[in-house]
Formats: sequence, structure tokens, C-alpha cells
Amino acid sequence: MSDVQHGNGKPISADIKLCRFRYNAVKDLLQKPATVLIFLGVERTKNPPTSSSSSSQMEPGAPDTPVWFAINADEEAAELLKRCEDKGCFFPKTPNRDLLRLDEEEAGVVAQARSVLAWHSRYSFCPTCGSPTSLQEGGHKRSCLNPECRSLKGVHNTCYPRVDPVVIMLVIHPDGNQCLLGRKSIFPARMFSCLAGFVEPGETIEEAVRREVEEESGVKVGPVQYVSCQPWPMPSSLMIGCHAIATSTDIKVDEDEIEDARWFPRQQVVDSMFRGAHQTLVIPPRQTIAHQLIRHWIGINS
Amino acid sequence: MSDVQHGNGKPISADIKLCRFRYNAVKDLLQKPATVLIFLGVERTKNPPTSSSSSSQMEPGAPDTPVWFAINADEEAAELLKRCEDKGCFFPKTPNRDLLRLDEEEAGVVAQARSVLAWHSRYSFCPTCGSPTSLQEGGHKRSCLNPECRSLKGVHNTCYPRVDPVVIMLVIHPDGNQCLLGRKSIFPARMFSCLAGFVEPGETIEEAVRREVEEESGVKVGPVQYVSCQPWPMPSSLMIGCHAIATSTDIKVDEDEIEDARWFPRQQVVDSMFRGAHQTLVIPPRQTIAHQLIRHWIGINS
Ligand SMILES: Nc1ncnc2c1ncn2[C@@H]1O[C@H](COP(=O)(O)O)[C@@H](O)[C@H]1O
Ligand SMILES: Nc1ncnc2c1ncn2[C@@H]1O[C@H](COP(=O)(O)O)[C@@H](O)[C@H]1O
Repeated sequence: MSDVQHGNGKPISADIKLCRFRYNAVKDLLQKPATVLIFLGVERTKNPPTSSSSSSQMEPGAPDTPVWFAINADEEAAELLKRCEDKGCFFPKTPNRDLLRLDEEEAGVVAQARSVLAWHSRYSFCPTCGSPTSLQEGGHKRSCLNPECRSLKGVHNTCYPRVDPVVIMLVIHPDGNQCLLGRKSIFPARMFSCLAGFVEPGETIEEAVRREVEEESGVKVGPVQYVSCQPWPMPSSLMIGCHAIATSTDIKVDEDEIEDARWFPRQQVVDSMFRGAHQTLVIPPRQTIAHQLIRHWIGINS
Repeated sequence: MSDVQHGNGKPISADIKLCRFRYNAVKDLLQKPATVLIFLGVERTKNPPTSSSSSSQMEPGAPDTPVWFAINADEEAAELLKRCEDKGCFFPKTPNRDLLRLDEEEAGVVAQARSVLAWHSRYSFCPTCGSPTSLQEGGHKRSCLNPECRSLKGVHNTCYPRVDPVVIMLVIHPDGNQCLLGRKSIFPARMFSCLAGFVEPGETIEEAVRREVEEESGVKVGPVQYVSCQPWPMPSSLMIGCHAIATSTDIKVDEDEIEDARWFPRQQVVDSMFRGAHQTLVIPPRQTIAHQLIRHWIGINS
């Protein structure tokens, strides 16, 4: 990653960006048997990124339109950084959090690359018969090497990268003026966020929202409204963001899942969002879908 | 399954329903080593189903509130049917299609049971190390039996049933009065339906809609609006239904994916929906999310 320079020294949108390696800088890595090469796509933006480490001399649509790949690398971080043209590059110390400091498009690139690489790392063996598998289709498919395997007859999801749908929801009090936020013990001090959980087989999004809210907080939910979604590469979730209207208000926290859950008045949430760090409540940063769900609620009837 | 009797002989809502087995009727199957037992849940409805093969004498909320499980069975269909108290039961000849004849709640039960059983059948081995796995948590988790396996350190999705998010979308012509429907070669004659495809790692729902429509039909899409979703147990998809507004109209079919795609005028779609089988266009049955997306469009400004 490398720092983005801003006129006034303050981050405006993204404050870090990806550093990109040219083919020549990494082509020896491609020879290593353990290297996984993933085709990410052809540059789609009108203005290719001007990062000095990548495509600064490219003409969009020209024959040298950049084509992006991701590779895994078992080299040491320091060794890898030497390959980078941009000498201001560094490895993030808190990758999960730093992901939030990328702009939306770059976060999408990381989401795709990290999800598919994580899939290759965890799914090297065929789940149907236990045999080794091989990479296909630019890294977007793995096929069982056992010619007798059932997974080779017909189309099976065992061969494709996994995407786990997760519901994340801002639960709104029946009075319309409070919202339910929870905290996990791993959260930074005073931070509360939206409740969330995995969609189970056979469930709709709306059913998953109602089940998770009731399981984690004891609160019952009526209407559910989809707002927006965000891919989250830890390792490969699709966070489906909703507003949900509570039909009950008593909270009973499931302590296996979360540490605390409370109703917060709209004004306290507004203060936390616009007045920053000195507040009793800290909400997740702007790039998270939780933040967007909260902001969207504040925007309604306010 | 068993037939639902209606006063006038015509199916009103569901025209078939599930037949359910009592514990005593299947308990010997539970002894077989290959049998997988899945906990589905405790009866949630106020009025337990009155199917003679299940809970007709149950009092809701009573200590004998039914608890539902699914099992796989390698017995012959005819043998299994003998275990059923309801002698009108039969095995569906076209299970995929007959699923659409169940009511919503029973379709949900099948979706859950079939998805989880399909997962056990395809995911018997650990994808991380290739070792056998064992069932846990009422059939909702599988753990690697190799004590050295990475999948046992921390929480990994390799241990949980898979749900594949799929986008399905009704694309609306920029003039607002036509919609884009496609057909696969396996469809019944004259049937056209909404386009659909798997969400890829790192994508949002809206991005997946735009990519799939452009890939399959060449049509470009602008705004995307979530409408509703449906779990689909073939083997375990979550169909996320959207309306999408086209920003281009030329169709270029990807013949690897679909056989044909066309713009259909609203009136032709209305005729097909309300006048039934003698039409030039056949749309999917009422219980499909494709039908619901089409109906929803017809309901807007009509
Ligand atoms: N999770 C998945 N399960 C099955 N097929 C997938 C998956 N992800 C991508 N595909 C691709 O989608 C195609 C089937 O798409 P469809 O015609 O929509 O059922 C397959 O031939 C695969 O190439
Ligand atoms: N696909 C999945 N990946 C990881 N955890 C899952 C999955 N499905 C269900 N779970 C459960 O969800 C818990 C983690 O949820 P969370 O705290 O929301 O990250 C795990 O401890 C599992 O019990």
C-alpha cells in the first residue's frame, strides 16, 4: 500500500491506495509451483490509475490496456517491497482495518483478490472425495483430479469460489427515534455497530434478519428493507445491509455472540457521527456498511 | 408428498404438501451409519399441520410441540412409502418442478433440508486437508478429523453449509413498457424467464446484476432495485430478485449461456400472466421468484 498525498495533509477520501506490481517485477514468482495466479479483469475505468507503480503511461482502450492479476506470494514482506517501483510502499500492520482506508474501487479489487486467494488456500482438496484439485479458468475454478469423482459429473458448487451471504441490519425502535446497536468484545472501546450474521440454507434475507436479531438481542423484528450491500473479504462474505423495524423493545443479550446491545437515541448517534471521537458512543468508520446503514437512517425524516 | 383436497377440485394455493414421518416410523434408519440426521427446528406455526401423518393430535406450545428433523435415506422409494401413515402419499416424478406446488412454508422446509443434506453429500471431506470430517451441531457443522488441520484453528467457512447468492433480475426497457426475458434450451416450449447468475467474490448485488445482464444479453444496465428473494435448494442458492433499468437496448445473446433473449411488450406479458396457456409467451409459474418479479413490474404504473 502507499500513502495518498492530499493538499491539506488530511485524508479526503481514500488515504491509502494499493501498490501494483508490473509483470516484470514478479514474473519469477510465477514459476514457483505454489504460486496461485488469479485473473482479476481488464481495466474498466476511463482514467487508468496514475500510481507510478502501474499504468501511468497507458492509454485507455489502447492495446496496452492493463490486465490485472492477483498472485499469492510466500516471500517475506520486505523482499516483496523491493520489487515495487514506488519506494513509498509499505505493508499494512492492521490489514483488516486498513482495507477501510482504500477507495471503493480499490477495496473491490482487494475483496475479489483476497476472497479468491483465500478460497484456493482453504479449498485445495475436493470436498466430495478428498482428492487434490487443480486450478482452471484463470483461477476461478478448481477441478477434482480423481477422474471417478461425482463432482466432475454435472455442475457442482464444489468447483467454484464460495461467497457467504451475511445480513447486517440497523434495527429501528418502534418509536422511530432510537436504533439498536451491539458490541463484540473485540471492538475498540465504546464502539457499537449493527447486528449481523450468516444467512442459513433455506432462509430468505428477511428471515435471516429476524432470526439473527432475535437470537443476539431478544428483540423481535417486523418489516425489513434492503438498503445496500458490500463485499467483505474476510474471507469472502457478501454483507447485505437492511433496515429493520422492531416490534418489541426488551433486550436480552446472547453473551456467546455479543457483549452488549442497547437502544441509542438518534441525537446521540448524530453526535457520534458528526462530532467525532470525544463521544460516549463510537460508530464504525465511514467505509463500513454499518456506518452507511446508520447514516441512511439519520438521513430519513431528520 | 400428498395431494391437497380442495372443495371445488381445483388447487387454490398449494396443490401438494409434504408427508411427514413419525419418529417411530423411521427410528431404525437412524441406526444406519450412512444416515445423516439434521435438526430443522421446533414447530413455529400457531396451528400445527393437520396432516394425518404428523402432528394432528398436537397442542401448540404443549410439551409435545413437534420438533422436525430431516434424514437422508438410501431405501427404495416404495419401501419408504410403506412407512407413511398417510396412504395417499407418493414420490414426485419431477421434484424440481413439484417443489413449486408446495406452499411457501413447506417449500422453505424442503429448501433447508435439501440444502443441508446436499451439503453433507458433497462435502464429506475437508477441503483444506482432504481428511474425512464428522457431523456436529445437529448436522449444521462438519469438522475435520485431522487434529493438525488449519481448519480447526479459528472459525472457517469450510465447516459450515454453503449458501450461493444468485442474482435474478427483470430488466426493464428504457421506455418502461418492455422487459427483457431469456430462455435456456432446457425450458419448456415458449417459456421465457428473467436472467440470472451467481454473485462472484468481491462483487456487490448491483454489480453482479450489471455484469450478468451484459454477459448474457449484451444489454447495459443502470439503476438496480432489490425486490425480494427466495431460497432455492438446487442445491443451495439464495435467489436475490431485482428490477434493473436498461440503458441500452441492442441484444447480443451469449449462446453458451442462453438460447434466446428478447424484449417483450407489457401487454404480451400481461396476456401470458392472466390468460394462461394458449399464449405465444409462457412465463414461469407463480411460485417462482421470476414470476414475482414480472408481476411486480406489471403492478407498477399499470
Ligand atoms: N457456485 C456455483 N455453483 C454452480 N455453478 C457456478 C457457481 N459459480 C459459478 N458457476 C458457473 O455458473 C454456471 C451455471 O450457471 P447457471 O446457468 O446460472 O446455473 C456453471 O456452469 C458455472 O460455470
Ligand atoms: N459460513 C460461515 N463462516 C463462518 N462462520 C459461520 C458460517 N456460517 C455460520 N457460522 C457461525 O457464525 C459464527 C461467527 O459469526 P460472526 O460472529 O458473525 O462472525 C461462527 O462461530 C459459526 O458458528
